[in-house]
Amino acid sequence: MMRNGRSPMPLESPNPNYRDVVERGFADAAFLHDLGIKLVDYGPGWCEAMLEVQPRHLQQTGIVHAGVQTTLADHTAGGAAMTVTPAEGFILTVEFKMHLLRPGAGESLLARAEVLKPGKAFHIVESEVFALKGGAKTLVGKFLGTMAVLPRT
Amino acid sequence: MMRNGRSPMPLESPNPNYRDVVERGFADAAFLHDLGIKLVDYGPGWCEAMLEVQPRHLQQTGIVHAGVQTTLADHTAGGAAMTVTPAEGFILTVEFKMHLLRPGAGESLLARAEVLKPGKAFHIVESEVFALKGGAKTLVGKFLGTMAVLPRT
Amino acid sequence: MMRNGRSPMPLESPNPNYRDVVERGFADAAFLHDLGIKLVDYGPGWCEAMLEVQPRHLQQTGIVHAGVQTTLADHTAGGAAMTVTPAEGFILTVEFKMHLLRPGAGESLLARAEVLKPGKAFHIVESEVFALKGGAKTLVGKFLGTMAVLPRT
Amino acid sequence: MMRNGRSPMPLESPNPNYRDVVERGFADAAFLHDLGIKLVDYGPGWCEAMLEVQPRHLQQTGIVHAGVQTTLADHTAGGAAMTVTPAEGFILTVEFKMHLLRPGAGESLLARAEVLKPGKAFHIVESEVFALKGGAKTLVGKFLGTMAVLPRT
Repeated sequence: MMRNGRSPMPLESPNPNYRDVVERGFADAAFLHDLGIKLVDYGPGWCEAMLEVQPRHLQQTGIVHAGVQTTLADHTAGGAAMTVTPAEGFILTVEFKMHLLRPGAGESLLARAEVLKPGKAFHIVESEVFALKGGAKTLVGKFLGTMAVLPRT
Repeated sequence: MMRNGRSPMPLESPNPNYRDVVERGFADAAFLHDLGIKLVDYGPGWCEAMLEVQPRHLQQTGIVHAGVQTTLADHTAGGAAMTVTPAEGFILTVEFKMHLLRPGAGESLLARAEVLKPGKAFHIVESEVFALKGGAKTLVGKFLGTMAVLPRT
Repeated sequence: MMRNGRSPMPLESPNPNYRDVVERGFADAAFLHDLGIKLVDYGPGWCEAMLEVQPRHLQQTGIVHAGVQTTLADHTAGGAAMTVTPAEGFILTVEFKMHLLRPGAGESLLARAEVLKPGKAFHIVESEVFALKGGAKTLVGKFLGTMAVLPRT
Repeated sequence: MMRNGRSPMPLESPNPNYRDVVERGFADAAFLHDLGIKLVDYGPGWCEAMLEVQPRHLQQTGIVHAGVQTTLADHTAGGAAMTVTPAEGFILTVEFKMHLLRPGAGESLLARAEVLKPGKAFHIVESEVFALKGGAKTLVGKFLGTMAVLPRT
């Protein structure tokens, strides 16, 4: 919500090859392909991903299912978390809160995630989901979660 | 966690046709069909649903994607909420917290939702997600959320 | 986290006397006096409050108790919610999530709350808690909650 | 909510002196004394604590302040977490969600916390808060949180 008083965004990732990790974190996730979620852009401390809304993503009331918005918010948060994680760690979601602020009802959804507080054992990450429609951009979802840093085995 | 001191489960729904509402709430949701989530059983104050795990539900580390578990937990919570809602209302998820307690890695996932506190404007609902594998049943996810009761228009 | 795509902050409150409501919401709360929390400033859609840290606010490890940080974050969120509520409504916390990001260990704590999404039945509000020490300002807590709008009786 | 499919409650603590840790975790916390919170009972995987409600605990609408309920729920959760933590670790709250289900308006509040999932790096803990009044016991709050296990230094 505010940058004032927060840690500044990191300028460098602790992993020189973090771009590979983020790219594979999206490319290798079967469920992302199944939904149609695509990585948009990322850098140290942040990540963006997108989804073109299709009829199969909807729930019975004609809006995007909460589970679709949440998958987008969670995976983008995971992407942001990967950018601040050393090469020997991988990321697993521990828990999150998701607020559905407005009906998800656009042509596409865009999520932007930012690391609120990086850590050794876990990172705290926020995501915001926006509905895009005819040039308009509306905040429809807010995610706040804990991402564990686990050793690769 | 405990029944002692809690409201007892309601014996009757405020909607004589609540069974229609719950059945349609699952049958008419495109995203549930897309994933393969099936309604199992329900009664006043509770609901159960299930998902046979398929490779397309997985994430890059070989476990069920958090978004899949969350969709199951959320929609089952919505089902439980519908059972305690009058005929003139419908249910929309406001927010929830989801804890991924253990890797979701079974043959199927079962969610059971219970209404913790019914209300006029919103219900508070808990869901628990279990992985089923060869007769074993393991708690893998916990959901706690707020479901708004909105007027049908 | 970002203003882009969000609703702009409201310029006017729906209650011409909202200042009275916010002032009384802090002045009449016994527990705020007991802790020493003081209203700092507010306007439509936001509120700030502060607490001088005293030894009685600490927990066994020498940092501010999570309950103290949470009380500050929650009440400031309630203040922000009051600014976007019509005169005939009052505010009650439904639920919130609180992240303790860093040890609360300054000379004083400052909370700033902003309404993320105002509504008829409930508002969604974020608060951030900062530790202030010798001119430095550090984000130590993040709150995200639902505030119900109930009719005054 | 259900024991079926959950881990059974542990029979033994990993710390032979866990009773000392829990007792001190309540005795040494200044803010607990300030509020009047008292440890009631505990065992491996669970903890109970209590508070006699006093006028200074109330908010402007005459009910117990959300921050008081939360402090009770959080500290009791910390107590339960301590019972499943080895001697070389200590417990710090990472985050939690708190639902205020009904007005906290009894003669006293009782919290019971249970560890939902113990872990090496963190435990997941639930608490329920009950209002006690003239022999009646009513569920008024539900807490679900993550407690980090940190090395003592």
